[in-house]
Amino acid sequence: MKQKFGAGIWHFATYVDRYATDGYGEPRSVIDAIELAGKVKDLSVVDINFPFFGGNFTNEKIKAALDKVNLGVVGITPEIYTKEFRKGAFTNPDPGIRNRAHELITQACEAVRFFNASYVKLWPGQDGWDYPFQVDHGTLWKNSMDGVARLASENPDLKFVIEYKPREPRVKMSYDSVARTLLGIEKIGLPNIGILLDFGHAIYGGESAADSAQLAIDYGRLFGMDVNDNYRSWDDDLLAGSLHPIEIFEFFYVLQKNKWEGVWQLDQFPFREDSVEMANQAIDFLKSINNALNDLDVKALQEAQSNHDAMKALKIAQKALYKNL
Amino acid sequence: MKQKFGAGIWHFATYVDRYATDGYGEPRSVIDAIELAGKVKDLSVVDINFPFFGGNFTNEKIKAALDKVNLGVVGITPEIYTKEFRKGAFTNPDPGIRNRAHELITQACEAVRFFNASYVKLWPGQDGWDYPFQVDHGTLWKNSMDGVARLASENPDLKFVIEYKPREPRVKMSYDSVARTLLGIEKIGLPNIGILLDFGHAIYGGESAADSAQLAIDYGRLFGMDVNDNYRSWDDDLLAGSLHPIEIFEFFYVLQKNKWEGVWQLDQFPFREDSVEMANQAIDFLKSINNALNDLDVKALQEAQSNHDAMKALKIAQKALYKNL
Amino acid sequence: MKQKFGAGIWHFATYVDRYATDGYGEPRSVIDAIELAGKVKDLSVVDINFPFFGGNFTNEKIKAALDKVNLGVVGITPEIYTKEFRKGAFTNPDPGIRNRAHELITQACEAVRFFNASYVKLWPGQDGWDYPFQVDHGTLWKNSMDGVARLASENPDLKFVIEYKPREPRVKMSYDSVARTLLGIEKIGLPNIGILLDFGHAIYGGESAADSAQLAIDYGRLFGMDVNDNYRSWDDDLLAGSLHPIEIFEFFYVLQKNKWEGVWQLDQFPFREDSVEMANQAIDFLKSINNALNDLDVKALQEAQSNHDAMKALKIAQKALYKNL
Amino acid sequence: MKQKFGAGIWHFATYVDRYATDGYGEPRSVIDAIELAGKVKDLSVVDINFPFFGGNFTNEKIKAALDKVNLGVVGITPEIYTKEFRKGAFTNPDPGIRNRAHELITQACEAVRFFNASYVKLWPGQDGWDYPFQVDHGTLWKNSMDGVARLASENPDLKFVIEYKPREPRVKMSYDSVARTLLGIEKIGLPNIGILLDFGHAIYGGESAADSAQLAIDYGRLFGMDVNDNYRSWDDDLLAGSLHPIEIFEFFYVLQKNKWEGVWQLDQFPFREDSVEMANQAIDFLKSINNALNDLDVKALQEAQSNHDAMKALKIAQKALYKNL
Repeated sequence: MKQKFGAGIWHFATYVDRYATDGYGEPRSVIDAIELAGKVKDLSVVDINFPFFGGNFTNEKIKAALDKVNLGVVGITPEIYTKEFRKGAFTNPDPGIRNRAHELITQACEAVRFFNASYVKLWPGQDGWDYPFQVDHGTLWKNSMDGVARLASENPDLKFVIEYKPREPRVKMSYDSVARTLLGIEKIGLPNIGILLDFGHAIYGGESAADSAQLAIDYGRLFGMDVNDNYRSWDDDLLAGSLHPIEIFEFFYVLQKNKWEGVWQLDQFPFREDSVEMANQAIDFLKSINNALNDLDVKALQEAQSNHDAMKALKIAQKALYKNL
Repeated sequence: MKQKFGAGIWHFATYVDRYATDGYGEPRSVIDAIELAGKVKDLSVVDINFPFFGGNFTNEKIKAALDKVNLGVVGITPEIYTKEFRKGAFTNPDPGIRNRAHELITQACEAVRFFNASYVKLWPGQDGWDYPFQVDHGTLWKNSMDGVARLASENPDLKFVIEYKPREPRVKMSYDSVARTLLGIEKIGLPNIGILLDFGHAIYGGESAADSAQLAIDYGRLFGMDVNDNYRSWDDDLLAGSLHPIEIFEFFYVLQKNKWEGVWQLDQFPFREDSVEMANQAIDFLKSINNALNDLDVKALQEAQSNHDAMKALKIAQKALYKNL
Repeated sequence: MKQKFGAGIWHFATYVDRYATDGYGEPRSVIDAIELAGKVKDLSVVDINFPFFGGNFTNEKIKAALDKVNLGVVGITPEIYTKEFRKGAFTNPDPGIRNRAHELITQACEAVRFFNASYVKLWPGQDGWDYPFQVDHGTLWKNSMDGVARLASENPDLKFVIEYKPREPRVKMSYDSVARTLLGIEKIGLPNIGILLDFGHAIYGGESAADSAQLAIDYGRLFGMDVNDNYRSWDDDLLAGSLHPIEIFEFFYVLQKNKWEGVWQLDQFPFREDSVEMANQAIDFLKSINNALNDLDVKALQEAQSNHDAMKALKIAQKALYKNL
Repeated sequence: MKQKFGAGIWHFATYVDRYATDGYGEPRSVIDAIELAGKVKDLSVVDINFPFFGGNFTNEKIKAALDKVNLGVVGITPEIYTKEFRKGAFTNPDPGIRNRAHELITQACEAVRFFNASYVKLWPGQDGWDYPFQVDHGTLWKNSMDGVARLASENPDLKFVIEYKPREPRVKMSYDSVARTLLGIEKIGLPNIGILLDFGHAIYGGESAADSAQLAIDYGRLFGMDVNDNYRSWDDDLLAGSLHPIEIFEFFYVLQKNKWEGVWQLDQFPFREDSVEMANQAIDFLKSINNALNDLDVKALQEAQSNHDAMKALKIAQKALYKNL
């Protein structure tokens, strides 16, 4: 089976930050972004922010643009991290705004149905706290779970994925790690909530993404994933494989070992790069990983792992990946 | 009720590390350490490493030394992180060594009964991995849980506490965070396994110790705690309160709010300091925190927290702690 | 002499980031920001971004707004980190853009003269790199120095301060630490270039801000400073003193010890807070530090320091700062 | 010319740490370690701790052991970080101990002459501080420089290299970064003091090792180097190339570009690994890097770098290193 590749549509947007408030490039609408995504060689699906950015577009209009470049939709990401939700979506101290988040995500559910996407992606980037003493932690965590639980029980036909991340934009996010997120999901106890594992979020949180994937799989909760890279201290969203090739290789090895099937997605932010080139280059790298998986001497690897023999295990992995070894 | 203070008996030992292999001071036996602990002004209990270090001592001999300086035992810490266990105790690839760990801890259970201590403390510092590809993560985590489960079910009269820590000595520990540890404990499903929350381990793992305490309490699993401080990137085991007074204050506020009753313990490593002086100074600081808790305007604080009002909440906390504010 | 307090005028702006692209509040012009700054109880001076944000304002117009609320100007910060400079100002690969940066800063020099400010502040936040192999490091560093050297030699009547920072927005900044910046300044060899030491940048770069201040002072290069706080892994720009009071206290102790005279400035980003309240609260804290400096038993402290006696030295500092000790 | 490989002789020792105080293996003398080093396929030289560990050995005895396995000596590392120097060597508050450090290093100078080694290696791992307020930073830094200056001026026939490191065992080391060390060396102003750049120390200090190498070279101060790897937050001393192959590749590219000639050394700590196997595996990796350097399209790379074109530059580097790309 040919591996399917995907990307967050924001990969093809331009960005602002707190310093370059005039942006890292000319503004683009979601339609512009879809056009660019269509130029990437092996992209099959995208995850789309909701509401659609850069204009007033109907679902049909978006669909037409996607069809034109032969792209499907893997997920819809409701924007529960904009100004209105700056003090939280699920955990906002104002119940009116918690309700607004619920309404927005409920609309996003309709979009998921329209596009026949795989899931609603929940990334509660403003849910958490900044300072000691700022919140009652018990209440905050309860609200983190309740908001997701209500959505999942109201929409049993859909899947919801939570993308955890240690921090940013909130100084500390409540869904901050694979284990915390699984703890919440298990407490909620509904079958249609899972994890979207972002490789970069895992490693900058001090996790081994391979271990995190195995854990989520063992709970039957790995519903999606995406990749990028960083310097282990912030969500830099750099080119996948650019800094930590061995760890991304192990991550994909764990997926393969568990026969996990799903889209290999990109969540990169080309602030200063050409977004089509960066997507192509990442996919080229992922394909080389895919080839390396085929070259891997799995039997010898598992033998080495059964002895926790790091040198042998690494050598096997390195031989599959590097020239001259 | 007067707050009880405790300390790991290793606080009064001397140390080696990979550079100062001749030690940071003259070797001391556990008896020497107990004598020093006895000189600390307000210490009531200690946690004792097992086997007893620095000689061949019976339980009775240790008890006599403790009685002489009027100290009780809060916990026993089997040394499952020495040479024999350098590749893991619960997760060692060699089942014979996993069994040796089980035997050693089982002996430690006897010591807990003898001293009428509150718990067996499990700190599996060598359980984990160093390199990508080194271990099968599913097996490793299963072994992490199985080893603890077996002990807890064989000794239903005792409590077991797991002290999680992100890393060191193992480059990555399997029980690395509050959420991962709770996930394991819930999966095991026995009532006599809980968490010992080390303030320093929490903050250098990127947790808010206050949030971690609330979470463990909400699962009924906070069985113990200890404090120290660090620069948020390593387990420096510095003087409690020396670097992060506001966060330690919030941690104790959460304990008080939940009416958590237990020993306030020290887990400090005075590599270059006088250990009695350092213990006294830490306890003085903890007492000042205790006083500050009484000064705290809890009603106003909770009002501020209900609005996530960081400035108001912090001001209330600061006023209780600082002069001149 | 009464201590003078200052703030970056951006403290009173609103912000965007890559997620809340619609901002954390309604847009404000520099005039709005000045009005808000005027409401802070003890603020004397501000540092102003150049060009003036939120409209087309003459120097005179700004001056009138400042006069109305009785504020002076301590520095002018040319915006050499916006879209045009996203690949660098001094180190941009395009010499035309390096020239544009020079022109913009030269205009900022005129503003410094107009407002009789103390310095031009250079914060080259986009100068650096993101990826391994991206740049020729020798050339990049040479350009980092040459750009500043040219300005300083063309404007010998003015002072230039470089505000170093480890990273953000550039993944890695070339002026990343106190030592690297001093190395550059010494190589340039002009008297009118110094350092603006940001407490938060120092500590999240792993420096002791107190040590950094001493070093810059010993080279005669500490021309300015500002404060805020963070969790030691990112430039969170939180409330000064909120997380690391002892370290900020030591920082001010070093300034006092060296008879350093200058404005105590705030560089905070109240994303979700009221900016006037946050500035007032920070200044209240800084005043309490100022009082604590007076309470400090300096003779005993220096005696303790001469023995590297951490416990004694800390106790002296704690007694000056905390209640109940 | 064939590349020469070296290693710290401690690579072949066993270790203790503060937990496994009984060691990670049976104790070995320096003679045992030399025997093991002799089994590594392509090792030419070693760096030897002084005094010689594990017994009372003359220089002649060591020389005989080295000759037997055909190894030379690249450097001598006086142990200025053991118990006696736990509060510092050059910066110890006790001038008597500062003098002891001087004497010990002076003896090490004799060994350097005896073995015709390239340098005395100074690694002042205990020089620094642990707590805020503990030291007078100006005095500490002055002593850091004075101790080295005295040695270098007393022994003008020898080279001294300073190996900087952010921390460990001291919580904060005074020679913590490439820039700080160069600043000190330039202030001292003697020709025979340089830097030994440890790749791992650079990256866990947030440096690009490639940039650090270029900087040291530009000051004429890169006298030595060694490699290993870590997770960017601690000096894990793991297998070279195991985690950050692209960055180590860039590091060697910068050395090659500057025609830097010297030994490629290993500074790894095989706590739980076979030390000969780990050395062989690292050298195999370094050879593959050497081959990749030959495959590198340098002209295209420099063209990409002149535009700061990260995607192009990375692709060129990746093609030289990876299969399937």
